[in-house]
Amino acid sequence: MRLTVAQLAERVEAELVGKGCGFISSVAAVEAAGQEAVTFVTDKKHVAGLEKSGAGAVIVEKRIEGLDKPQLVVGNVNAALIKTLNIFAPRLHPAVEGVDPSARVDDGARIAKGASIGPGVVIERGVRIGENSVIRAGCKIGENSTVGENSRLDFNVAIYHNCIIGNNVIIQANTTIGSTGFGYRFIDGSHKLIPHNGTVVIEDFVEIGANCCVDRAKFGETRIGAGTKIDNLVQIAHNVEIGKCCLIAGQAGMGGSCKFGDGVVLAGRVGVIDHIEIGSGTMVGAASVVFHSVAAGQQLFGIPASEKKESLRAISSTKRLPKLIEQVRQLSTRVERLEAAEDDKK
Amino acid sequence: MRLTVAQLAERVEAELVGKGCGFISSVAAVEAAGQEAVTFVTDKKHVAGLEKSGAGAVIVEKRIEGLDKPQLVVGNVNAALIKTLNIFAPRLHPAVEGVDPSARVDDGARIAKGASIGPGVVIERGVRIGENSVIRAGCKIGENSTVGENSRLDFNVAIYHNCIIGNNVIIQANTTIGSTGFGYRFIDGSHKLIPHNGTVVIEDFVEIGANCCVDRAKFGETRIGAGTKIDNLVQIAHNVEIGKCCLIAGQAGMGGSCKFGDGVVLAGRVGVIDHIEIGSGTMVGAASVVFHSVAAGQQLFGIPASEKKESLRAISSTKRLPKLIEQVRQLSTRVERLEAAEDDKK
Amino acid sequence: MRLTVAQLAERVEAELVGKGCGFISSVAAVEAAGQEAVTFVTDKKHVAGLEKSGAGAVIVEKRIEGLDKPQLVVGNVNAALIKTLNIFAPRLHPAVEGVDPSARVDDGARIAKGASIGPGVVIERGVRIGENSVIRAGCKIGENSTVGENSRLDFNVAIYHNCIIGNNVIIQANTTIGSTGFGYRFIDGSHKLIPHNGTVVIEDFVEIGANCCVDRAKFGETRIGAGTKIDNLVQIAHNVEIGKCCLIAGQAGMGGSCKFGDGVVLAGRVGVIDHIEIGSGTMVGAASVVFHSVAAGQQLFGIPASEKKESLRAISSTKRLPKLIEQVRQLSTRVERLEAAEDDKK
Repeated sequence: MRLTVAQLAERVEAELVGKGCGFISSVAAVEAAGQEAVTFVTDKKHVAGLEKSGAGAVIVEKRIEGLDKPQLVVGNVNAALIKTLNIFAPRLHPAVEGVDPSARVDDGARIAKGASIGPGVVIERGVRIGENSVIRAGCKIGENSTVGENSRLDFNVAIYHNCIIGNNVIIQANTTIGSTGFGYRFIDGSHKLIPHNGTVVIEDFVEIGANCCVDRAKFGETRIGAGTKIDNLVQIAHNVEIGKCCLIAGQAGMGGSCKFGDGVVLAGRVGVIDHIEIGSGTMVGAASVVFHSVAAGQQLFGIPASEKKESLRAISSTKRLPKLIEQVRQLSTRVERLEAAEDDKK
Repeated sequence: MRLTVAQLAERVEAELVGKGCGFISSVAAVEAAGQEAVTFVTDKKHVAGLEKSGAGAVIVEKRIEGLDKPQLVVGNVNAALIKTLNIFAPRLHPAVEGVDPSARVDDGARIAKGASIGPGVVIERGVRIGENSVIRAGCKIGENSTVGENSRLDFNVAIYHNCIIGNNVIIQANTTIGSTGFGYRFIDGSHKLIPHNGTVVIEDFVEIGANCCVDRAKFGETRIGAGTKIDNLVQIAHNVEIGKCCLIAGQAGMGGSCKFGDGVVLAGRVGVIDHIEIGSGTMVGAASVVFHSVAAGQQLFGIPASEKKESLRAISSTKRLPKLIEQVRQLSTRVERLEAAEDDKK
Repeated sequence: MRLTVAQLAERVEAELVGKGCGFISSVAAVEAAGQEAVTFVTDKKHVAGLEKSGAGAVIVEKRIEGLDKPQLVVGNVNAALIKTLNIFAPRLHPAVEGVDPSARVDDGARIAKGASIGPGVVIERGVRIGENSVIRAGCKIGENSTVGENSRLDFNVAIYHNCIIGNNVIIQANTTIGSTGFGYRFIDGSHKLIPHNGTVVIEDFVEIGANCCVDRAKFGETRIGAGTKIDNLVQIAHNVEIGKCCLIAGQAGMGGSCKFGDGVVLAGRVGVIDHIEIGSGTMVGAASVVFHSVAAGQQLFGIPASEKKESLRAISSTKRLPKLIEQVRQLSTRVERLEAAEDDKK
């Protein structure tokens, strides 16, 4: 795909400032952009790099005066950036409609029209796949599970039995949904597994990264709310309930029966122990570990996680600790000396 | 499955207190239970919720006076809960005995009677699968590895060559057993891989979650002791030796050559660096990282992990640090003033 | 394989000290070695264990006086150890050249001579596999991706489209390369995925463990430099650039757009937040989390990671904190008493 700057401006509904005759064939960051790439400004530091940038054009929200480069002025740079990336996305062949001959689909399963079942896929009895969903090569879907419409399971995704995957869901490669949780009871000298009769419900527009695990419930459901996005290598234990539009970054993990409100954000590597409730809109900073339930709208940080500013203050104080110990030692000596002098006077 | 309360009482060998004519078709938590669900009391907080609970019956160890609900009084609630969950477990079709036509089983492999080899499974030469074991769709088992009796490998499990999996073992989806460990030596300007001639031994009744890794040994064995249970996304490096009946929770990881006694418990996200020994029965709290070997029967917490109470005290002290620094600053001023007054007198 | 000590000495180009007529058939650690095993000394503690060791011979760099055991004196024990392990490596059947009948290779893909495409492998159109590369059972390789020569992808590896895997690369089982990164923008009330037009480049001699994730770039490349080695369960986010000959241990993770120099070492479970630069040769200790960019040649430790010695000092100081708080309380009382005495005099 190759467009002139003017054509691109039209496609993303931008006001063009400058010449429209150059060619654009890709999107690139300010510092990496060549002549045929369009770049963008979503941060002040991007503006600073623009003069030196080789970019053939730039997408901005406010016209930059004095810039010797074609500008595409738009209402929302992020929205325009997504449109532009879609325009220049690599051209791939669409998934082939129907069931690949090497797939094993049980007679009792129902595959809707427009769905694509890739090579080596195994679909057990009672499974239903909705319209236009793509089940890529190597996926396994256990008995009675359902996948909605327009969803996509990438290579080698494993879905156990009785799970419910909604519409417009994306699950990336090698992720496991519906595994048995880590629930044991110590009876008569050994750990006995609690049967996991429950299931997993993944609501619409959820996206889950690669190599994640979502365990099924002991009873009831493990549920991930609509619009929630989950990164790679994330662990979601049995009976967890995650609200809508949450963001869960890479390597985060939460213990059994956690309950999150809507719009909760866990940065990378955040841990949450079992049975914790986190209120809507609360954000937890990278690598923090949450040991106590927390209200809505909070900002947390640290191990254990507490109010972010307080936590950062405590952490930075820790660095002063060796010096503080020395100060206290010296103070102690000085006080002793004063006490001795005082004693002398008596 | 639907039983009367009286029938259920009989099945779990409970003493029935109250009416036995209601119907039960599932198990649920106190707060979620509807009329046809049986709930249970394993914790005092469950008792508090019982009056409001819609549950049709409750499993208890001691009869609760004044409760207007049928009670099933048992010797051990956990044991009865497991029985009840098995009674009401979702009915799934049993694994099909024999080798699926789409599986690739090498002529030199031996599959015992009653074993089930699912679609797309690949079994290399010299492999032996014991009686009644279930190898689910997409598993790959490398040359000369063995799986005992009554074991189950879920979708897409990868077992490398020469590994030994015992009887009654469960390995969940997308887990890798027998990968080469992270052992390099810097020779002549680059990192050279140490060949891993060793193997992995997984003893009887071990259960391993989804998306875990267990590396093979450089020489000798990586060994997981009988009855040990491992959660999802756990990393077990080369030459690790884990004792019997340990519990290793989600996202835990241990470095090369760690040695654990029996009954060691690692909570979620615990890390253990390489070459650490942990004595039998020691418990390490969530997200702790163990940097030093530790005796049997300890309780550890923190990063670095140390004796739990001491560690918690240090952590809670840290919050008081900003105030302490201010206190010391003020004390210092006051001592200076006293010293000046003392000087004046000389 | 079974050699006399003399034959082994010849094979590893060692000077033999002592009798050469015993038989050796394996390599073992000092404490585990039996009569037919050769052991080695790479550490002083190994020397201490040698007298009690049952080993039939020992590989050393300097002859140990008075040791009643055949010694193989070599210039570099590690190099000799690797040679020896290769000599006694378990004999496995080589990968079968050509395409397994159960593999699905698109007509538009090119498989070089000597390459092995295992059972159940799926190779999409436009893919190229280089000479002598081994694609083991269950791997999936997306449209237009390439694998160089002498590389090996183990069971169930998933490679998305347009990725570039170099020569002599090893990727272990259940690893995912080229997944879409965690890049969203909040537009009109929901999180919109940023299309990931970019790719992943894995340079020559890179080795990646099991169950890892390497995300593709939003634009441009995620790149792993030649000779870099990566352990299991590691997360590498979009647009990360890792230099040459780095070592990244198990469960480490790095956020988007991190840039590492050459020879960077991350110990187990290290986290690096997004957009961090780490200079060449810097080493980060186990379980540390890096929140700020850092120059070359540093040693870091802690959460947040800072200069290692300083960080260790601060951590050990923390343990003294409860006592320090008590000391300050007492000092405060003593200063009050002195102030009262001073007031009395006025």
